[in-house]
Amino acid sequence: MPAMKWWGWGYEGVEFSHEDKPALAPFIAEAIGIDVAHKVAAPVRFDQLPIPDPKLPEGLRAALERAVTARFVSIDARDRLVHARGKSLRDLIRQRRGALPRMPDVVVRPGSEDEVAAVLRAAIDADAVVIPFGGGSSISGSLEAPAAETRPVISVDLERLDKVVEIDSGSRLARVQAGVFGPRLEDQLRALGYTFGHFPDSFTHSTLGGWIATRSSGMQSDRYGDVADMVKGLRVVTPSGTLVTRPVPAASNGPSIREMVLGSEGRLGIITEATVHVRRIPQERTILGYLFPTFSDGLAAMEDIAASEHAVSVTRVADSHETQFSFAMRVRPTLVDKLQSRALRTFLRHRLGFDLNQMCLSFIGFEGSDRHVARQRRAVGRLVKRHGGLCIGSGPGVLYDQKKFDIPYIRDFLLDRGAPGDVSETATTWSGLMPLYDAVVTAAHGAFTELAVPGYVMCHLSHSYHAGACLYFTFAFRATGEAEMLGEYEVVKSAIQQAFVDNGATLSHHHAVGTEHAPWLQEDISAPGVAMLSALFNGTDPGRHLNPGKIV
Amino acid sequence: MPAMKWWGWGYEGVEFSHEDKPALAPFIAEAIGIDVAHKVAAPVRFDQLPIPDPKLPEGLRAALERAVTARFVSIDARDRLVHARGKSLRDLIRQRRGALPRMPDVVVRPGSEDEVAAVLRAAIDADAVVIPFGGGSSISGSLEAPAAETRPVISVDLERLDKVVEIDSGSRLARVQAGVFGPRLEDQLRALGYTFGHFPDSFTHSTLGGWIATRSSGMQSDRYGDVADMVKGLRVVTPSGTLVTRPVPAASNGPSIREMVLGSEGRLGIITEATVHVRRIPQERTILGYLFPTFSDGLAAMEDIAASEHAVSVTRVADSHETQFSFAMRVRPTLVDKLQSRALRTFLRHRLGFDLNQMCLSFIGFEGSDRHVARQRRAVGRLVKRHGGLCIGSGPGVLYDQKKFDIPYIRDFLLDRGAPGDVSETATTWSGLMPLYDAVVTAAHGAFTELAVPGYVMCHLSHSYHAGACLYFTFAFRATGEAEMLGEYEVVKSAIQQAFVDNGATLSHHHAVGTEHAPWLQEDISAPGVAMLSALFNGTDPGRHLNPGKIV
Repeated sequence: MPAMKWWGWGYEGVEFSHEDKPALAPFIAEAIGIDVAHKVAAPVRFDQLPIPDPKLPEGLRAALERAVTARFVSIDARDRLVHARGKSLRDLIRQRRGALPRMPDVVVRPGSEDEVAAVLRAAIDADAVVIPFGGGSSISGSLEAPAAETRPVISVDLERLDKVVEIDSGSRLARVQAGVFGPRLEDQLRALGYTFGHFPDSFTHSTLGGWIATRSSGMQSDRYGDVADMVKGLRVVTPSGTLVTRPVPAASNGPSIREMVLGSEGRLGIITEATVHVRRIPQERTILGYLFPTFSDGLAAMEDIAASEHAVSVTRVADSHETQFSFAMRVRPTLVDKLQSRALRTFLRHRLGFDLNQMCLSFIGFEGSDRHVARQRRAVGRLVKRHGGLCIGSGPGVLYDQKKFDIPYIRDFLLDRGAPGDVSETATTWSGLMPLYDAVVTAAHGAFTELAVPGYVMCHLSHSYHAGACLYFTFAFRATGEAEMLGEYEVVKSAIQQAFVDNGATLSHHHAVGTEHAPWLQEDISAPGVAMLSALFNGTDPGRHLNPGKIV
Repeated sequence: MPAMKWWGWGYEGVEFSHEDKPALAPFIAEAIGIDVAHKVAAPVRFDQLPIPDPKLPEGLRAALERAVTARFVSIDARDRLVHARGKSLRDLIRQRRGALPRMPDVVVRPGSEDEVAAVLRAAIDADAVVIPFGGGSSISGSLEAPAAETRPVISVDLERLDKVVEIDSGSRLARVQAGVFGPRLEDQLRALGYTFGHFPDSFTHSTLGGWIATRSSGMQSDRYGDVADMVKGLRVVTPSGTLVTRPVPAASNGPSIREMVLGSEGRLGIITEATVHVRRIPQERTILGYLFPTFSDGLAAMEDIAASEHAVSVTRVADSHETQFSFAMRVRPTLVDKLQSRALRTFLRHRLGFDLNQMCLSFIGFEGSDRHVARQRRAVGRLVKRHGGLCIGSGPGVLYDQKKFDIPYIRDFLLDRGAPGDVSETATTWSGLMPLYDAVVTAAHGAFTELAVPGYVMCHLSHSYHAGACLYFTFAFRATGEAEMLGEYEVVKSAIQQAFVDNGATLSHHHAVGTEHAPWLQEDISAPGVAMLSALFNGTDPGRHLNPGKIV
């Protein structure tokens, strides 16, 4: 896989554009007072970056070359820069300005678990710091070395560990190396008739090891589970040897070691392999669009589905603000599209009594045999109707399914236009969702008002469970200026995160802690919880060689 | 709840009897050479026990009385004895002989979380040891103080914390105090139309806190999940204050604190409350009996069900040995029963070609709406048929359902007759089940041969998952004599446990580690896994006040 841009999301040359979306420019102008035709900023040029020389002691370099061969030990400036940070909005703003972090001194690419172990031994022997690197898509600050780190910093890029090692078809388990990217994992599995079924927005630029280290969750988690549910056996290179947990379906063997590695962000070791659930590619896969009169109607319908005997693969409901954004994102509608849309709006307003400003777009996914899908569609249709909802067919779902991996590019597009835009997501109980939603929206608008900037916040429910769901917020505003942007962003982001923990929700549902969410950890898991994490990390890694400063 | 017998399972006066089961005596005589009419042993009399006086410093006693009032601080000899151990077979053998352990010096019964916190503070201030006590049903040695413990030992019995505090019906979550016993929990929930749905064999004598501390699993886990799945929020009194995890459905907030408390057996603190999934009482609940030609046919059918879109509540398949035991357990068959049974056997042998010595009894449970149950029954029926299985109706399932909580009494019945009988359970992948089964049976018979004792081992699959299942083994043998019994038992039990870890399985699926399974922990979770547990325990409880010596 080629590396992502050092200053933004995705590959060089790929970017988000408003030009094929006629309704988007007026929407953005209205929402945050930005003229998208007018770029006001750009990343500094690479050759103007003040990239410091690496500080790599000769002995350590020799040991790393012995571990992985010289070919896979890189001190190239661009390579080090790409590995210096992830893709949080703070990362993007700072990279674009040329405000560089404590850069890694070297990037190594081990080709086997033994080589990973040799790298870690060399690092510990040289009192160096090791930061595991998957796809580099972290948006919580999990990849940046502490600013004051004086020891050598080694970024361990796992991209060469990209194979499906074997499939136990009788148990529907695959042994997979941790460095594999989403598309390559699915390609290898699909060739054998299987899917892992994990499709986070970062899918094209994130890896199995990264998903495990951050407790990732994908779009079809209602069917496949979160990564925490799908990962059974683990192999992790630690300072005291290779940790191995068995791929048993459940165990009563003390506190779960597996669940300590999940979400550990490199603090316990380097994940090299996992044994994961796989499933036969389903006969049928459909995502249907629905409209609900209000957000709370949509949430109530999702709760009914979660409480029912009906199994779906995707539950998603946008609030009215995100619904309007979705409509504004439509690509060049044809005349037929326009007429249909007008007819639908008339029907909704006059026949169903919808307030079109309150209306909410929803997607529900179905997977399995034809019969199963048909039955679930009918049953879910009845539940949706009970909450005033209306099925609008598979068109919107197909579009959403095709476009979802493009969404992360939009942040760079907005930064070019002086507008920070970002996401914050959380989870709480079903009964807590609406109060939480109201509190977060109020907090975001309070922050916009405090900053005196025009801002927009929108939300969707993205994953449903027995007792609650994930709410995913997206926000953007027009910064006062380039210099004020980072500070203003932090005011808004902090207001939202604080509203999460103040309202009984968690600091993140699937984006991890890193450094950016760490300020809310104690409010989320209580002081004794933080003490337990510290005990675990300090005891496992007394020399603080493993990605220090993250989580706690 | 009254306490269990100090020397055996359940309440005084309740015991297992063979007298209403005409086929059982000949079965046991054949299997392990025991004449059930002939009792050869009995527990020593309580008044002959050498119960030592408690060593309770006056300052600690006063502090405990301040914490919970004098009424709930007990130094009664019988009370201390009941709290000295759980109900493992090693516990039973030793209690019956009067071979007493390091007894607790005092039993305290706090009535609130604040009182639990005050007890723990008093214990730490006095450098005492605290052992949390739920129902006392542990069969892995989780409740016994280390033999060489010189500090005061406090058993903290949580029986007064027995309330359902509140139900969030919109989220299907209940806040429940940890000391509640199974029946009282279900009674409180059923009065409100809900069930927790957790029915381990120990149900009548175990508590929510105990289930959490041991990662328990119940008979209907295929539908309701294991306790690890059903428990969300937790409150735990720890040396550094009250740990609180939020009842969110999922979170990406670092290694899971919740999953550290699950299975912690008192080593991290005293669990006082949990917020757990509840469900509406289902409209329909059925357990059907099936027969399969062989054990591997039955396992293959369960795997097909696990891989299918069909949701069941119970999957259970006995091997041929356990099937024959089940048939021998039948109560006074009527003439009609006998005729039906004869007709069925003829049909199976001559029409289906069953070898009746290989035949396996299976139960599959269905729950939900009438329509859902009817549909799943039909679909599962087709899968069963594909593996040569035959539905034999609901009679056996009803019987099993009524009798399952009586099974633990059988160990005392056998001990009275000179025969140790016990259980060992594990989990592995679907493809690993048959090799594991064969290896365990071989290991058990190897141990019987080595000891030159007549022995019997039988097995059932008890819980199914996407990628594997739990195998539950039961074994019994005629000991050479009273003096040899404990040592001989340990030879057999060890052979079985060793076969588990030698064949890729875990040391226990739902019976925990305690002291009895601890010898296999490192083989199960690897040395770095043990190091992580030690780091967690030592860092959280540096003074080793919390149930020392358990798990690691």
